Order: sequence, then structure tokens, then C-alpha cells
Amino acid sequence: MKVAGVHRRSLWADAAGDAVWVIDQRRLPFEWTIARLADLEAVRTAIAEMWVRGAPLIGASAAYGIALQCRVAADDAALDAAKARLDGARPTAVNLAWATRRMVQAMRPLPVAERAAAAWALAGRIADEDVAVNQAIGRHGLGLLQALAAQRPGRRLNVLTHCNAGWLATVDWGTALAPVYQAQAAGLDLHVWVDETRPRNQGASLTAWELGQQGVAHTVIADNAGGHLMQHGEVDLVIVGADRVSARGDVCNKVGTYLKALAARDNGVPFYVAMPLSTLDLNLHDGLAEIPIEQRSPREQTHAWGRDADGRVREVQLTPDGSPALNPAFDVTPARLVTGLVTERGVFPAEEAALRAAAAG
Amino acid sequence: MKVAGVHRRSLWADAAGDAVWVIDQRRLPFEWTIARLADLEAVRTAIAEMWVRGAPLIGASAAYGIALQCRVAADDAALDAAKARLDGARPTAVNLAWATRRMVQAMRPLPVAERAAAAWALAGRIADEDVAVNQAIGRHGLGLLQALAAQRPGRRLNVLTHCNAGWLATVDWGTALAPVYQAQAAGLDLHVWVDETRPRNQGASLTAWELGQQGVAHTVIADNAGGHLMQHGEVDLVIVGADRVSARGDVCNKVGTYLKALAARDNGVPFYVAMPLSTLDLNLHDGLAEIPIEQRSPREQTHAWGRDADGRVREVQLTPDGSPALNPAFDVTPARLVTGLVTERGVFPAEEAALRAAAAG
Repeated sequence: MKVAGVHRRSLWADAAGDAVWVIDQRRLPFEWTIARLADLEAVRTAIAEMWVRGAPLIGASAAYGIALQCRVAADDAALDAAKARLDGARPTAVNLAWATRRMVQAMRPLPVAERAAAAWALAGRIADEDVAVNQAIGRHGLGLLQALAAQRPGRRLNVLTHCNAGWLATVDWGTALAPVYQAQAAGLDLHVWVDETRPRNQGASLTAWELGQQGVAHTVIADNAGGHLMQHGEVDLVIVGADRVSARGDVCNKVGTYLKALAARDNGVPFYVAMPLSTLDLNLHDGLAEIPIEQRSPREQTHAWGRDADGRVREVQLTPDGSPALNPAFDVTPARLVTGLVTERGVFPAEEAALRAAAAG
Repeated sequence: MKVAGVHRRSLWADAAGDAVWVIDQRRLPFEWTIARLADLEAVRTAIAEMWVRGAPLIGASAAYGIALQCRVAADDAALDAAKARLDGARPTAVNLAWATRRMVQAMRPLPVAERAAAAWALAGRIADEDVAVNQAIGRHGLGLLQALAAQRPGRRLNVLTHCNAGWLATVDWGTALAPVYQAQAAGLDLHVWVDETRPRNQGASLTAWELGQQGVAHTVIADNAGGHLMQHGEVDLVIVGADRVSARGDVCNKVGTYLKALAARDNGVPFYVAMPLSTLDLNLHDGLAEIPIEQRSPREQTHAWGRDADGRVREVQLTPDGSPALNPAFDVTPARLVTGLVTERGVFPAEEAALRAAAAG
């Protein structure tokens, strides 16, 4: 998508083939910083410290992490160690382990000497595939938006989203926002309610920023406000991304998603989850019991980052000294609350048979 | 309750009888500032700009606003104008209009010359009554907490609250937190999950601060996290305050309350609302349709206040330039989601007959 009118991806290979570039998303929307990651540890740090975030982008970044490691040591033991090192950087998103597994499995049959070149090519393919997958998600989601718009002629369509599942969370296009961007291209009159998404504010910072850059009408709201808006008919559809989806369709996504799903159900608002099928974890059944929820630093909750009146980006403490905080990063929305899963192969109900069939192609 | 070990009320009359003192709550928890309000406009500003907030404290403050006006002009026209001026400062809380109506109605039969002294005495009585009412709410709520604790012997009781309905929201004791303080006094092992309560962060700032000053165990969480905690059995009871309650028991309270009520219902967690009966508006039936929801400045949503690394309290911008925000301050939780209303006269179901009987005494 565009930044200041120029097309960008959130991750791109260095032309020299010895590093990958990413946007350091921690300082958006106030500072545009790109970072060159030249080895496994740099990639791990970028994932763990959320320079890159969003399940699909984490996956593509991790693929490059394996590829960079292959330039140093590409034997089986080195591959396994690299995979373990990356997988531990963020425990919840399944795309991370999916990408590293795919990389390692593809390298294993090859002679060690060929692995660096092959890994580099495969990481590039994983990134390109992500773009194609998200375009397909966008097309299928566009159909849903067009159908809703047809029921409300002459009225602007109001979409609510949580966190950032836009192009910054993927290599390009985004998952939840891909349909929004395609709807914009198709001329649909549309507006996005952007949940702030405390404690890291990915909605208020990243989603608002990328929608603004693309010229999509949007309004930032407190995470608390979505239910009120739904009660008053101000939300036509909720669409969010996912970090991991169980075989029966339980959706693990940014903490707070579950509350929006409950409000959507209570008000008859359709609740969709956009996700590449790589986000589906067919080994899991009960998402609530089985998906590990990452506990992040309490400091993300006790503090907030922003730009002060002098234009300096700084952190401020919100809580009194001595008050502890807890920071679970994700929650699980039970399948029963999910209207449908928007994937690259179409829109599916949150049901095990349908999801297994979708995954099988 | 206590501040640094010393007992305080959130509002007290100046001994000279010509002003009322309040805590300027906007700078808590970082700065302790008290303010002397000497006329109607000062009281109105303190209410509108949220130096004082919380429905019961707004009511008591407004009563002093009328009393201060009576020192200047106490004829009927002046009283009516003062009431209108104060009522417009915050449109949602019913206690504001309740207190000003009570003041004006009590003054009207009196000779104008006697009104200033009578109004001063009545404002003091309203403040004292609020303290007594909240103590009674605390006693009735304590019964609920003790009953729950008895079902979970040997386990710490986990209470979740939203916004600040503590002593800072009242003259003393609080509404939702009065049972917590009484439980602490009764030796119950108890811990409070404190919703941050964006966009003004009354939970992270005021509730965390007053619980900390009282030595009550607590943890600050994102507004997004409560559903997740309830799914995992980490919340035994939700208790919140109210700004206005309709005759059938629809509860208007800080925006986001509705989402917690939905999650409580979905997880079988009891959801209680603590409120003085002055919060009940028997003229309203359908809270969702009839209660006006205050829209506050978008700046509260696009920015946050906190203390920087140098110890200076400052505002930072969270959102990109050009991204608009919407800031509805309240939402309405339908009566069907409310387990019970904890009042000074006991715990009542959210049903019209019960509430009308409670109000009638």
C-alpha cells in the first residue's frame, strides 16, 4: 500500500541478498524508520520487540530469519536451533511456526551448500504468497461488503476493526483491511471505526495511519465505545484479523476481540475474521483451553507512548507508582460468535468440517 | 477514606462558610491539588472540566453551587438560572439535576433573606447523606462478597470494576468500591481488577490510586482484558457504579460497562451495579433510547496524560495528525444483563416493580 503516495511493502529483501528491510513500526505514526536486519538475532529482536508484528508479517520475517541463518550455518542442527530461537519470540501467532517449519522442511532434503540460496528464494516466495493470499482475502471480503451495501442503498457502510490487521500486519494489503482497500477501489462509500487497541494502541497508531495514508474515511474510538456504537446501529460489520484459529473455528486475536464479538452478537451485527489459511491450527480444537496466551510486559499497560507538544515522541506513565498491571496480549473468541472466516479460498463458517475442507483445498 | 494515612473527603465546606473545597482530580495520581470554589461559575467549571466527577460527587458539588449562588442572589429567578447553568455542565448524570432540584425546591418556600443560610446547611446535609448512603451500599455489597467468598473457601476473591466509583466519585466511601473497603475492614482476602477506562483513564489513575492509598490489592488491566480474565475464571464478581438508571433497571455508566456486562453474562459471572437511589430516574423506561449520552472532546481520545521520565505531567498525542476521533462518555447496559442493584436500602433486581418499591422506601 502507499506511504506518502509511494507504494511500499512492510518487508523487502535487500538487493544484495544479505539482509531484509522492515519498517520499525514502534514509532509509527510519528516517525518513519526502516531497519536493515542482517542476521537471525536481528530478526528475532525485531519480532520479539514488535518492530514487526501481525501474524502474517511475523511469518514472512521469520522465513527471512531462517534464510539469513542459512548464510552462516545451514546444517540441520543450525536450522533446528534457528527455528526454536524464532518460534520462542512470540508464542501465540501460529504463522511464525508455520513459516519456520516450512523453511526448515524445504531445506532438509537439499545439500547444505545449496540451502542458503534456496532459503533466500523460498523466503521471497513466502512473502509474495502472502501478498497474493491477502489480495484474495480482499476479493472475498469485498463481496461481503458489497452485499451489505446493497441492503443499505444510499448509506455509508460502517466497518469496525480492532488492532491492526492492515498491510502493516502483513507483507501487503492486510487481512481485515484488504476488503476495505478493495472496497475503496471499487468506489464503495465506507467508513472504518478504529478501536484504539490498548495497551499498545495499534489501532490508534497503525490502523489510523495506514487508513489515512490510503485516504480511507475513519474515526478512532476507545476500545470501550464499540458496544455503544453497535447498540445505536452505527456498525454494519465487524472484521478483525487472527493470530491463530483452532480447527473448530475458535479465534485467537488481539485482546479485546472477544468483547467486540459479544457485542456484535448481542446487536445482530455480523462478525467476520479475515485470515490466511496458514493461521489455521488444525492440531488444536478448543482454542480457549489450548492456545497459549502471551503475557507481555506490564509496562505496556502502565505507560503509553505518544508525541508531546514539542514534537518529541516519549513515554508517559499512566498509573500510580506501586500499582501493578497485567498484560495478556490476546484473547480467544469462541467459534459460536463468529459469523464467518474470510480466507484466500473464500468465506467459511467457523465449523471444523468446513475449515478442514478449506485447508485441504 | 485515606490519603497518605490521613482521612479525607472529596469535598468539604470552608469553615468560613463562603466556599467549598474539592480535590482537582485531573492531575491525580501524580499531583495532589485542592481547589477552593467560591461561586457558581467556579463550581460549574469544576463539574464541566471534571475536576470533580462521579455522579454522587457531581450532585453534592452542584448543591454547593446553588448554595454559593444564594449568597449572591437567592430570588426564584436566580435559583432557576443557577440550576439551569449547573444542569448543563454534564448532561448524563441524573444526580446533578436531582441535587439542584432538591436545593431549589427546598429554598422556594423560604423568604429570600433566609435562603443563603438554609442552602448552605442543606448542601452540607446532602454531602453527609451521601456518605451515609454509601456506607449503607457498602454494607449491603459486603454481604454479596461474603456470600461469594463462602462458596470459595481459601481462595482470594477477585472483583472487577470499571472507571472510578470509589470515594473520589462520591463524598466518601464510594459506591462500587464501598463494599470493597468494607470487605477489607472485615478481613476478606480480596483483589480488584481495575479497568484502565480509556479515554480518561479514571481506573488507571483514580481507582488504582485510591485502592493503593487504602492498601487494597489490585491490578490495572486494559479495558480489553476483562473478557479474557472472565473466560479463565479470574473474576468472581463485577461491580460498577452508575450515572443514571432507568425505572426498568437499564444502567447508564462509563462507556465500556456494557461490554463487561456482556462478558460477565457469557461467563456466568455476577454483574452488580452499586448506586444511591438518587441515581434512579423513574421518569425513564428505556435507558438505551432515552438517556442522553454526553459526547466529550475527541482530544481525550487522541491524547493521553501521564508523567514523563523527568517527573513532569504532560499530554502526548497517540493518533496520527488528521485522524478524527469520537468520544461517547457513557453507554447503557440493558437491565437483562444486570444481576442486581446494590442500593442504600438493599440489593434489588433490575426490575421496575422492585425499583419503584425501593425508591418509595
